[in-house]
Amino acid sequence: MKALVYQNNTLALDCHFPAPAPKPGEVLIRVLMSGICNTDLEIMNGYKDFSGVPGHEFAGIVEQARETNFIGKRVAGEINCPCNRCPTCLSGEPTHCPHRSALGILGRNGAMAEYCSLPRENLVTLPDRIATREAVFIEPLAAALEITQRLHIPPASSVMVIGDGKLGLLIAQTLRLTGCRLLVVGRHREKLEILRAMHIPVCLAGDLDPSSCQADTVVECTGHGGGFDLARRCVRPGGRLVLKSTFHRVPSVDLTSLVVDEIQVSGSRCGPFAPAVRLLEQGLVKVLPLIDREFALDHGVAAFRYAGEKGRLKVLINHQDIQNAEIG
Amino acid sequence: MKALVYQNNTLALDCHFPAPAPKPGEVLIRVLMSGICNTDLEIMNGYKDFSGVPGHEFAGIVEQARETNFIGKRVAGEINCPCNRCPTCLSGEPTHCPHRSALGILGRNGAMAEYCSLPRENLVTLPDRIATREAVFIEPLAAALEITQRLHIPPASSVMVIGDGKLGLLIAQTLRLTGCRLLVVGRHREKLEILRAMHIPVCLAGDLDPSSCQADTVVECTGHGGGFDLARRCVRPGGRLVLKSTFHRVPSVDLTSLVVDEIQVSGSRCGPFAPAVRLLEQGLVKVLPLIDREFALDHGVAAFRYAGEKGRLKVLINHQDIQNAEIG
Repeated sequence: MKALVYQNNTLALDCHFPAPAPKPGEVLIRVLMSGICNTDLEIMNGYKDFSGVPGHEFAGIVEQARETNFIGKRVAGEINCPCNRCPTCLSGEPTHCPHRSALGILGRNGAMAEYCSLPRENLVTLPDRIATREAVFIEPLAAALEITQRLHIPPASSVMVIGDGKLGLLIAQTLRLTGCRLLVVGRHREKLEILRAMHIPVCLAGDLDPSSCQADTVVECTGHGGGFDLARRCVRPGGRLVLKSTFHRVPSVDLTSLVVDEIQVSGSRCGPFAPAVRLLEQGLVKVLPLIDREFALDHGVAAFRYAGEKGRLKVLINHQDIQNAEIG
Repeated sequence: MKALVYQNNTLALDCHFPAPAPKPGEVLIRVLMSGICNTDLEIMNGYKDFSGVPGHEFAGIVEQARETNFIGKRVAGEINCPCNRCPTCLSGEPTHCPHRSALGILGRNGAMAEYCSLPRENLVTLPDRIATREAVFIEPLAAALEITQRLHIPPASSVMVIGDGKLGLLIAQTLRLTGCRLLVVGRHREKLEILRAMHIPVCLAGDLDPSSCQADTVVECTGHGGGFDLARRCVRPGGRLVLKSTFHRVPSVDLTSLVVDEIQVSGSRCGPFAPAVRLLEQGLVKVLPLIDREFALDHGVAAFRYAGEKGRLKVLINHQDIQNAEIG
């Protein structure tokens, strides 16, 4: 099959890559569309030492499955494949299973190919109201929802989101649903404009006076170390700092100041798929404005090059139907 | 001024009721519109031994205020007037102040008159995007939001709302914003239809098998004792039961079963106004489908009679402009 393959620090299109052979309990999926995530771009920089087929944001059609009535369904898939037997799994934290593989990130080929495979229980059937282009956003939207999955954000609290990248725009949309007093801070006027059109208050980082913020909760999702420092200065004493960025180089943190100001810091990674499907289906989160450009799978290398340029939003890879797809 | 007055078990229109004289720190409001709440109907049945002008759901125009630039603003108002000095107030629970008055419910004349008064800090200025008819719903929407204000409802949890009255329809809309798996159970096909049109899953009480529910959280807002029993049977062991109904006759509760099944029961009353304004302004909660009929203030007695009939939704009283108002 055709696949994008990352090997020896190089991404290339391989037209004769072996199709995945699903293990017992797994399902073979014909990929319709995939999305390029910052994690994919970091993998190209050596993150997780991954080699193989990247891609973990996707929508596809079930091609082979034990349940015959599942074949032909349009699906999206949770990327973590836990062992379901270890103490971490049994304590209700399967996404943290130390024995897990993760689609296109850790010990498992990903979705940027004609086919991929995942365990049956990882897959959710897509309602008709969700377009395939929208479905590619279910994985990052689930990651955004991990914040409210882990933390109680009361409606009468103040929340700041620092970062206006793809994930930041999704996080802002999920947090405004709490009714909280929200302010999104970013560096890109045109990205903030997407939120402003949804009546979400926004502010350019250069226009912000952190000392006047004093937010109850601050979410850092800039993807760079400088974001942490700004986020730290915006949170009130006794408040909470939620970290969404993963850095190659860990920024230094003044731990004593966290003690003195009694700040609670929470890491947050992958999140629940089913609520992401519900919010998309009900139109409560808008993802189409987040699409920057679409490439055919044959032009996947160019898609990655484009996605890595400064200020890009979501770049999609169209696997099956090059109609409506811009060719890079 | 004209006012609806409840006295000696009778509601009547009084055309010569004295206009309120605002105390220091209070503001005089010309009422544009008010709404009839179940609490108002209960007051007519002797609830809280209230006598005077009823009405606590309203929108109006500031007529007299110390801040001259506040005059002329369109406002809604938080109904509880706390002392702001007692231990309850200082612990951050002013809506539970034992010395409080409450607009049209407790020791303070309400909004079903040409004018009412409230402390300045109780008032929120209405954004242009919120119509006056919608603004009347801010108070009950705030009460709906008190659930997520007090409790963490994770996106990946299951929630049932028992009751499809005016409050139930608002609660359902706020809870679906969490992304939770929601089911609303009611007795009125046409009320449930309002939610179904928003893609919220609904079920007629007669079609429900409580033993198959096992919800993480169940919200009881039927307004009658039978609702509690149904809600209790729908919650899973270790789950939570949120009580929104206030009953004249307290239903009996099998407390031992709560111990055995380790159920957490939470009462929930008035909630935060600012988030209600934000959700209405952003169009994330729809209230116009909840309006049943509109009456002029002169016909307020008929409005109450109509609102008390079985199966009614929100009945509004139009105080100023009888255009577009149905006359009862």
